[in-house]
Amino acid sequence: MAIITLTTDFGEKDHFAGATKGAIYSELPDVRIVDISHSVSPFNILEAGYIIHNAYKSFPKGTIHIIGIDSEINQENKHMAIKLDDHYFICANNGIMGMICSEITPEKIVEINIHEKIQTSFPVLDVFVKVACHIARGGTLEVVGKTIPEIKPTKYIKPFVNDDKTQIIGNVIYVDNYGNVITNIKRSFFEDIQKGRTFVVSARNNKFKKIHNRYSDIVNFDIPEEKRHDEGRGLVVFNSGGFLEIAVYKSNSATVGSASSLMGLSLMDSITVNFSKESMLPNSVEPA
Amino acid sequence: MAIITLTTDFGEKDHFAGATKGAIYSELPDVRIVDISHSVSPFNILEAGYIIHNAYKSFPKGTIHIIGIDSEINQENKHMAIKLDDHYFICANNGIMGMICSEITPEKIVEINIHEKIQTSFPVLDVFVKVACHIARGGTLEVVGKTIPEIKPTKYIKPFVNDDKTQIIGNVIYVDNYGNVITNIKRSFFEDIQKGRTFVVSARNNKFKKIHNRYSDIVNFDIPEEKRHDEGRGLVVFNSGGFLEIAVYKSNSATVGSASSLMGLSLMDSITVNFSKESMLPNSVEPA
Amino acid sequence: MAIITLTTDFGEKDHFAGATKGAIYSELPDVRIVDISHSVSPFNILEAGYIIHNAYKSFPKGTIHIIGIDSEINQENKHMAIKLDDHYFICANNGIMGMICSEITPEKIVEINIHEKIQTSFPVLDVFVKVACHIARGGTLEVVGKTIPEIKPTKYIKPFVNDDKTQIIGNVIYVDNYGNVITNIKRSFFEDIQKGRTFVVSARNNKFKKIHNRYSDIVNFDIPEEKRHDEGRGLVVFNSGGFLEIAVYKSNSATVGSASSLMGLSLMDSITVNFSKESMLPNSVEPA
Repeated sequence: MAIITLTTDFGEKDHFAGATKGAIYSELPDVRIVDISHSVSPFNILEAGYIIHNAYKSFPKGTIHIIGIDSEINQENKHMAIKLDDHYFICANNGIMGMICSEITPEKIVEINIHEKIQTSFPVLDVFVKVACHIARGGTLEVVGKTIPEIKPTKYIKPFVNDDKTQIIGNVIYVDNYGNVITNIKRSFFEDIQKGRTFVVSARNNKFKKIHNRYSDIVNFDIPEEKRHDEGRGLVVFNSGGFLEIAVYKSNSATVGSASSLMGLSLMDSITVNFSKESMLPNSVEPA
Repeated sequence: MAIITLTTDFGEKDHFAGATKGAIYSELPDVRIVDISHSVSPFNILEAGYIIHNAYKSFPKGTIHIIGIDSEINQENKHMAIKLDDHYFICANNGIMGMICSEITPEKIVEINIHEKIQTSFPVLDVFVKVACHIARGGTLEVVGKTIPEIKPTKYIKPFVNDDKTQIIGNVIYVDNYGNVITNIKRSFFEDIQKGRTFVVSARNNKFKKIHNRYSDIVNFDIPEEKRHDEGRGLVVFNSGGFLEIAVYKSNSATVGSASSLMGLSLMDSITVNFSKESMLPNSVEPA
Repeated sequence: MAIITLTTDFGEKDHFAGATKGAIYSELPDVRIVDISHSVSPFNILEAGYIIHNAYKSFPKGTIHIIGIDSEINQENKHMAIKLDDHYFICANNGIMGMICSEITPEKIVEINIHEKIQTSFPVLDVFVKVACHIARGGTLEVVGKTIPEIKPTKYIKPFVNDDKTQIIGNVIYVDNYGNVITNIKRSFFEDIQKGRTFVVSARNNKFKKIHNRYSDIVNFDIPEEKRHDEGRGLVVFNSGGFLEIAVYKSNSATVGSASSLMGLSLMDSITVNFSKESMLPNSVEPA
């Protein structure tokens, strides 16, 4: 049974997501629809790109991903369908796919051209659903669009590195449900620059000299539990998606606070890594 | 496979929606459950009516819609099941179905009377699920209730028109995830009154002389992108449901603002349309 | 078809819930996944325990429940799988199962030991999904873990009763979507202590002498609707889960207010019940 996933900024309340699912079942009774997220911030390309990048790989090959963010068609915002890593993605050509496409080259990109038949102010329902169901029935991308060579580029996908490779300047690209702050600095990128040197990660006036693999690595379990004061402490990890993340142990924005609230970090804020001039330690990132 | 949809004010956190789904699967293993919304504002009949009105038509004929808003039974709030447009609706007779029923006459309305057997403080789970599963198995409405001639009327479904038809006074019936403000003025209703005349839509001290079909119709694509200042600009559209909507281009309540936040528009606020005395243009609403 | 439910603090926005579902479908194409809640407050064991306690019973026997709260493994926080009441629960041994296990003795508890093969910073996806799919395929708990005699105890599961049984001191364990405030005082527990005596429930400076079965029991339907002032009035009920709940009639935190907002009641606040010294009435709790 085909799987169609939904990632949108429709929110949890409005009828848009429900109507989209109804339209899919009307075309294709035997399909599995999976909500990835409907709570992307309105029109936020970068958030949507981060979410779909982290979610799609867990799905079986052949899964079809509808991404409904900023999808109103106009002369600068065309619709496209991409085959990549044996998954299909249907979205506007507005930068959402930049993060994934910077890591894996698409097999095929088409600009959707079934619009002459469809006049719509709800393109996810009227266009993306039609294309998704076409693919789910085994149809090819060529039938619904014309091949284009590349997608529109996305800003803020890659961090900046200075010439003598002593500094990375990254950006906050996502703040998660725990208020943890995720940067565009990936582990492999970091380690390529680091080459075993010591470093300091700076997020505003917070400094970190170590990157952990697990949040609870900062806890000293030799101290009795009632004497520990770890909740609310800051730390840096490479998260499960491989991104450098400024976190707070057992954070909760409503109680102990979070990395975002306690350190004043928001989307697009810069995070700096300064490396020592010479190699000092084999690897101060803990082995995975 | 039967489809049962859920539209409630249970919220995203509590166990109510999950328990309801469990109860459906316990009665009927082979059914498809689709969440339309669980984030209707508590006890908000008008919001629920707007959401189900916009969502149900996308589903296949025969779909069963459970609407769990203000569903505690008492002498003034009876439970009912409706067949309309080849869809089934199960809810309290409290006005939720007013918007749909004002457009399409129900084929059958029954007041549910299976309660003598069921003592409950969770009627969606104990009553609505039973009725939905009965219908999904092919059962008739007559078995679960007695026919009633009409539903309880709903306020604010229709806008007011003055005697000489120069003015429509509508109300805000919904604020969507983008902060766009939706009125009870439908396109067909508007055009019937307009008869080609010019008009001014007034929302507090904001005036609009044009109604667009797409949000990006206000963008002048001849100006280079970096010189445009369209984000946050107000406009009026007929939305995908056909309702007159006061919108803001690429709105986001947390950043550029929204129609609701920038213009100070909330549920029930009035929106006025004033028509010129005589016909001047064939049609200033853009053709669909 | 096996059913796997998800109860987590992942929130509605992040990729975590979507990725988890993708991983389940990758292992087991023919399974039914049901979201119970992804909006548990971060790391809140008590909330998660209350939600799963109230939801699981509606599901068919054999259902597998993944609970992803505070699930990072470390020397004090082990993973476990429980068979209880013919349902399966997979979670960290951190107290989440305390409420259910205080009422029903588990048939089997195992500490999961498949971790030597799995290095992970996303244990729900990498460990819990594997265990759930193993059970869904008919596998036994012994294959994925070693039997342990009992779970870690949970605080605040039981209210305090004084020696002469004239007072119960309970705690707020949950605030629901309507702002209603749920205590750890269960109906059966209350009635065992009450033995027909009159009582006063005190929540800060609010006093209640009656416990209702339905919210609308406080409405006097003899008064015409437009002259009633019931919305926003406080009351006490035993809710559909059997817990003593301080509620507000037709509450809405954004408009008329809620029990939580109007009475200033939050998680962990104490609620007191004082009983009269001698039995006076057969039963002042209304018969069910």
